[in-house]
Amino acid sequence: MTKQQLVDQIKKKKSFLCIGLDVDLEKIPPHLLTLDDPIFEFNKQIIDATQHLTVAYKPNIAFYEAYGIKGWQSLQKTINYLNQKYPEIFTIADAKRGDIGNTSTRYAKAFFEDLNFDSITVAPYMGSDSVEPFLAFKDKFTILLALTSNKGGLDFQGLQSDNKKVYEHVLETALTWKNAKNLMFVVGATRPEYFKTIREIVPNHFLLVPGIGAQGGNLQDVCKYGLTNDIGLLVNSSRGIIYASNGTNFAEKAMESALELQKEMEKVLSNQ
Amino acid sequence: MTKQQLVDQIKKKKSFLCIGLDVDLEKIPPHLLTLDDPIFEFNKQIIDATQHLTVAYKPNIAFYEAYGIKGWQSLQKTINYLNQKYPEIFTIADAKRGDIGNTSTRYAKAFFEDLNFDSITVAPYMGSDSVEPFLAFKDKFTILLALTSNKGGLDFQGLQSDNKKVYEHVLETALTWKNAKNLMFVVGATRPEYFKTIREIVPNHFLLVPGIGAQGGNLQDVCKYGLTNDIGLLVNSSRGIIYASNGTNFAEKAMESALELQKEMEKVLSNQ
Repeated sequence: MTKQQLVDQIKKKKSFLCIGLDVDLEKIPPHLLTLDDPIFEFNKQIIDATQHLTVAYKPNIAFYEAYGIKGWQSLQKTINYLNQKYPEIFTIADAKRGDIGNTSTRYAKAFFEDLNFDSITVAPYMGSDSVEPFLAFKDKFTILLALTSNKGGLDFQGLQSDNKKVYEHVLETALTWKNAKNLMFVVGATRPEYFKTIREIVPNHFLLVPGIGAQGGNLQDVCKYGLTNDIGLLVNSSRGIIYASNGTNFAEKAMESALELQKEMEKVLSNQ
Repeated sequence: MTKQQLVDQIKKKKSFLCIGLDVDLEKIPPHLLTLDDPIFEFNKQIIDATQHLTVAYKPNIAFYEAYGIKGWQSLQKTINYLNQKYPEIFTIADAKRGDIGNTSTRYAKAFFEDLNFDSITVAPYMGSDSVEPFLAFKDKFTILLALTSNKGGLDFQGLQSDNKKVYEHVLETALTWKNAKNLMFVVGATRPEYFKTIREIVPNHFLLVPGIGAQGGNLQDVCKYGLTNDIGLLVNSSRGIIYASNGTNFAEKAMESALELQKEMEKVLSNQ
């Protein structure tokens, strides 16, 4: 998918919502557990109920890996379902991978070619040659961790070096890498005070923003400095949407939670 | 496995070798390709031929993920084979994972409980609460990336902050985390000039050292400052051993390459 296609979808749906498919068998409605593939069945119903309100889905790969081979089967079925039924939707493998060059190439092939995700999250710690193999794929996006939403995020990302913090170095340096146009960046919604500086460094790249809802982030704060002329934001919610109910009405309740966020987003976009 | 059991194995085998099982179907002997599970068959023969010379095996998970569900089956069969036939051998899931707390817990369960690896490599970028879920497992080891062997490794790890480099902050800060005794650290063999400083910060923890052989690192340089009274080193070689030949004699040739490194290690240990 190209960046323009993503922007067009956002404008059409009046939504820059991303829904995190972090599926935990202990949290999904018990009536699904007797089915052959409860995780896929849960995802399918969530997707069908929310696809008109969201522009992206983001399965966190840990939740699938935790179930071994069965988990990988559920992941594969989920991404196939999305690609076949809703090809206009942007897909994110939240994998936070990153390794030496020849190894990163293996990860890139697994997620971009075999599973056919539009994008993958990648950790920057190992530097240029651990990320560039992902950037080499045309019309695929590499979403680099910059400033994460968790409490320990600042342990190293917040270290000061040459009047800049490490996460600012990550943003600046990444822009010099080959095919940097294929980058997006993860910036947590729990740190709205940093968005202004971040937008000065990366004025045009998309930001994937987790941390709304369960983690305490706020949409208005994120939009104040995060929005660009091309929107430039994908705001993720996982638990707040997919676990809105664990009754038989879970998909409907997920839709209602997604609708609430979409309405807020519509308002923000109409004021632009 | 406890640290003492690992040290005992090293002394008994006169080897601190780790063999990387980074299996690529394009590089393994073609005569294996007609088998039902060429990756497992390759690993099994490599393991049987080298297990007396090595104290650890390290499958890099990317190489398995690249083959989807079939790859996961091969990984599962490999770790089961190791745990059943050679339980005294230390196993490392080279996964370089790391995510927010509840997600890291999923990864930890997947690799420590379901697959029953003794250890996993973890990326530090997201800080304390992304690593501590791994450290919580008793008799399991979390091998934190500190200073990696690849060219781009210094892009961010080498940034200077408060008269220290970022990787030094990672080492120092990690020592303050809960269950820090369950830590080991990745330090690349391609950067021998840093081992002295590293040993001042972490005098007792094990270091996992990749980068010998194909990547250009040298065993003598690593041992000069890396060795401790309890050895404290696991030196990894992957391609130099497992792809020593791609003929029908591949396992024998792998054994010969491993033997060469083991003999070098035996010499180092006898001079201690």
